[in-house]
Amino acid sequence: MVEINSTRLLDDLAALRRIGGQGTGVVREAFTATDLEGRRWLARRFAEAGLRPVWDPIGNLFGLPPTGRPMVLIGSHSDTQPEGGWLDGSYGVVCGLEIARAAQEAGLQGIAVVSFADEEGSFEPLLGSRVWSGELPFSAIQDRTDRRGRRLRDVLAGMPELRAAEQVPPQLFKAYIEAHIEQGPVLDDAGEAIGVVETIVGMQHVEVAIMGDQNHAGTTPMDRRQDAVMGFVAFAHAVDEGFRSEAGPSTVWTFGRVTVSPNATSIVPGRTDATLQIRDPDQARLNRLTARAERIAENISANGSIEIRTQVTAKLPPAPLNVALVSTLTSAAERLVPGRWRRMVSGALHDAVPVSRIMPSAMLFVPSIAGKSHCFEEDTRLSDLVQGCAVLAAAVEQVLVGHLPWNVV
Amino acid sequence: MVEINSTRLLDDLAALRRIGGQGTGVVREAFTATDLEGRRWLARRFAEAGLRPVWDPIGNLFGLPPTGRPMVLIGSHSDTQPEGGWLDGSYGVVCGLEIARAAQEAGLQGIAVVSFADEEGSFEPLLGSRVWSGELPFSAIQDRTDRRGRRLRDVLAGMPELRAAEQVPPQLFKAYIEAHIEQGPVLDDAGEAIGVVETIVGMQHVEVAIMGDQNHAGTTPMDRRQDAVMGFVAFAHAVDEGFRSEAGPSTVWTFGRVTVSPNATSIVPGRTDATLQIRDPDQARLNRLTARAERIAENISANGSIEIRTQVTAKLPPAPLNVALVSTLTSAAERLVPGRWRRMVSGALHDAVPVSRIMPSAMLFVPSIAGKSHCFEEDTRLSDLVQGCAVLAAAVEQVLVGHLPWNVV
Repeated sequence: MVEINSTRLLDDLAALRRIGGQGTGVVREAFTATDLEGRRWLARRFAEAGLRPVWDPIGNLFGLPPTGRPMVLIGSHSDTQPEGGWLDGSYGVVCGLEIARAAQEAGLQGIAVVSFADEEGSFEPLLGSRVWSGELPFSAIQDRTDRRGRRLRDVLAGMPELRAAEQVPPQLFKAYIEAHIEQGPVLDDAGEAIGVVETIVGMQHVEVAIMGDQNHAGTTPMDRRQDAVMGFVAFAHAVDEGFRSEAGPSTVWTFGRVTVSPNATSIVPGRTDATLQIRDPDQARLNRLTARAERIAENISANGSIEIRTQVTAKLPPAPLNVALVSTLTSAAERLVPGRWRRMVSGALHDAVPVSRIMPSAMLFVPSIAGKSHCFEEDTRLSDLVQGCAVLAAAVEQVLVGHLPWNVV
Repeated sequence: MVEINSTRLLDDLAALRRIGGQGTGVVREAFTATDLEGRRWLARRFAEAGLRPVWDPIGNLFGLPPTGRPMVLIGSHSDTQPEGGWLDGSYGVVCGLEIARAAQEAGLQGIAVVSFADEEGSFEPLLGSRVWSGELPFSAIQDRTDRRGRRLRDVLAGMPELRAAEQVPPQLFKAYIEAHIEQGPVLDDAGEAIGVVETIVGMQHVEVAIMGDQNHAGTTPMDRRQDAVMGFVAFAHAVDEGFRSEAGPSTVWTFGRVTVSPNATSIVPGRTDATLQIRDPDQARLNRLTARAERIAENISANGSIEIRTQVTAKLPPAPLNVALVSTLTSAAERLVPGRWRRMVSGALHDAVPVSRIMPSAMLFVPSIAGKSHCFEEDTRLSDLVQGCAVLAAAVEQVLVGHLPWNVV
């Protein structure tokens, strides 16, 4: 029976929090000094736990146990947003470390741990897991720069660890399981301890350009205007109404960026640019919603003096997780926190998305207090952190000793 | 009978256009080298026309005739927007110059000309006319800086002309008349030649702050959002509907500036700031519309999770023009361009606004092709420029020789 050591788990989380810590938050952007310091600390902790630290060419850090058998990989990332919280990513990596130690103490081998590089997208969102899974060729992004103006390949060339980088074949692993904070309010609202993720949503990203006619705000009569802000208002209003009638329980849509030109008090706006981001676990519904937004834009353009152009610039398909792993996690949750868990959808993207395309994968959520994340206030009750790790450990033990039908996806 | 010389009028307009000319446009921002070059050229032309050039302490340039009798003041401004047209302001000043010359040739005295300083607001909109009319004390703005970082009082101290500056008492004048391009599409649309302005609109300026709750665009369910962009959309939609039912023929309203925070694709916006500018010739309607916008904001704040704060930061009252002067202008228009003129409202502010508070004032508009102004494309047919000046000259002749009831306002 694998029994995690809650003090060791929380001590390691606190130690990692101090690296780049600022007040209650953490600043460890990918490939900065604090990020590398954090991951070098992880490498030492891996070694102390009997796991061999291995850096791969894109800068992912693995902790590999001395075993030839197929392994279970547990982890996440340890970089943060420019103003990040202490648990986003780090929780999953430290859970992996603790479960590897606890499993060894219980005489079980076969647990590997990973800290994927640059999940938060300093160079590219999910950089390490997308390159490792083969979805994103290194050649396509080697010249990408971060907001400091650094080039990815120069950054990698500057890491002494990568001189001895090794490829880590995904075939070594029979499953990937990632623990993460929910980053939303659902579990906290419901007073539940565990979310077992069934699907990670797909996302479509629509760039919207509203083309009006820039003019004097005093001398242009209302019926002669082609006002690009009022064109945006009409579009967003119609999209919101239309989407509400078609939405599923997990559908979300967001006009997150709105830029007006020339953006002056006394000028009728000539152009508005906006982004419409749509997320849903159901690919067919995603397609229907995007088509509906396009139709609304066409109707407004056809009826009025405003022209609205739409362009779908990203289409990420939903990532359904492995049915057998999901069921192992739900059994463990019901055993340890009966009635205080749920099956749910992840509205955020995670390293599990690209990894799920190449091996059976699963995710487990613990509550985020008030749903806050990507900010210094991000937090989770310590008892929930311990319970999440315990449920994950119980599920992993089943995977290691059991005979799960891996081809059932 | 005062007869203007159309060649002389158009030649002077063309000469002034070359000073700061860029392509079809003009760049003569207030108190820059090109603005001063233009106004020094005007001073020389005033002198050649027998008008004594007088600079007052704020940098207004007058051309005063040798007469002790009350005079009629004709003019406008000759500075431009950062990318301005060739007629905005300049047309009114050069009309004054030409009418002063033509009146002298007809044996009539008593016409003075003015180029007011900084109408376009490099330091302050309507700077010269507001200071001259006593509305704005120089002490209140002497430390104002322009976008080049220059301080107003340093700029004035650097003008050699102002060492001999003279106060020009408004009591010298019995009326002010300003010719200007319409800067809107009304006359051009109707194929008319002259607009006689009855009222310059008042303006109220409302700062709107929509306070939401910044959150993750993937993990925050729709029913848990306080989305500051969708709050703005609801507000602007309701304001637009409400205003349409209450608007008069000249009412206009504009959300010209909209700024979203943090303005990122994947973040539910936490705050939107917008400006709502309302213009109308009727003070009571202006007040009703502003109150209506405030009520809509209160209703949305009371019913939903979004808070909308409004603050009225400017209330400029409408400026009704002098009834007797308006009627003199309409008679002249009907005589010279029968059936091709209209009474109208000015939706833009002009130097006539502050001047109308201290003496009988009037304005005459000529058409702007396609309504364009404050841009390099700004233009008016030459025949319309000539006709406008001729109507103005005929009206001014009536004022000089006639006995108009000046106290009827």
